[in-house]
Amino acid sequence: MCVFCAVIEGTAPAEVVYADVATTVFLDNRPVFHGHCLVVPKDHYDTMDDLPDGLVAPLFATVKRVAAGVQAALGADGTFIAVNNNVSQSVPHLHVHVVPRRFKDGLRGFFWPRSRYGAGEMAAIAQLIREQLESAPAR
Amino acid sequence: MCVFCAVIEGTAPAEVVYADVATTVFLDNRPVFHGHCLVVPKDHYDTMDDLPDGLVAPLFATVKRVAAGVQAALGADGTFIAVNNNVSQSVPHLHVHVVPRRFKDGLRGFFWPRSRYGAGEMAAIAQLIREQLESAPAR
Repeated sequence: MCVFCAVIEGTAPAEVVYADVATTVFLDNRPVFHGHCLVVPKDHYDTMDDLPDGLVAPLFATVKRVAAGVQAALGADGTFIAVNNNVSQSVPHLHVHVVPRRFKDGLRGFFWPRSRYGAGEMAAIAQLIREQLESAPAR
Repeated sequence: MCVFCAVIEGTAPAEVVYADVATTVFLDNRPVFHGHCLVVPKDHYDTMDDLPDGLVAPLFATVKRVAAGVQAALGADGTFIAVNNNVSQSVPHLHVHVVPRRFKDGLRGFFWPRSRYGAGEMAAIAQLIREQLESAPAR
């Protein structure tokens, strides 16, 4: 059984901090920083792409609420919200990381390695994405 | 003027790949990987905490759509979706990063430095967050 489904059902141990009709929130047991929460839909979907459109709003309403709550509860300066879809995703049950952040907490330097676009590359890639978004069927 | 507001208004150059009534999407010009998009609300809000509850759904509906589109357009294996609120946030106009990911793209090792909880710490921090979420006023 999916370990996050077991947490949601209450059959696996976890520090659950919030739950409502659509979402459950619990502490990641290997936190980036203490207070690192995982917000999950109660129903099992592997990735964001699998999440029905109607569940986007309740999931991210909880994310917004938890981000404000974690920041206030821990006296943090901000938050980091993240979803790994498929790559770097250790549990294949969609989960949104909410991590409290502090200025000078040490994450900045390594966190965002940046590359560059060569001449013409940026426009070409933008066009590929535009065409894909225009051709995507409505759901 | 806010640089992202200028992009939204069309007075600053950007590779815009999508726009609708509530959101604008353009390429980050210093991408983690090529195709890295920024999804922004058209109205200016500094952080997720400032975003009105009614705009959470349209913003993340666009994020979901763009994540699927970028992955398909670039033949990627997955995506990374992230928001920096206040800390590590270079432009103070709420923006959601959507980054195409590939297996073995090199990000995994450094990306998620993990810590641990000492005895009792996890339960104590969970309780702080629970109390904060219970006491937060409805908006």
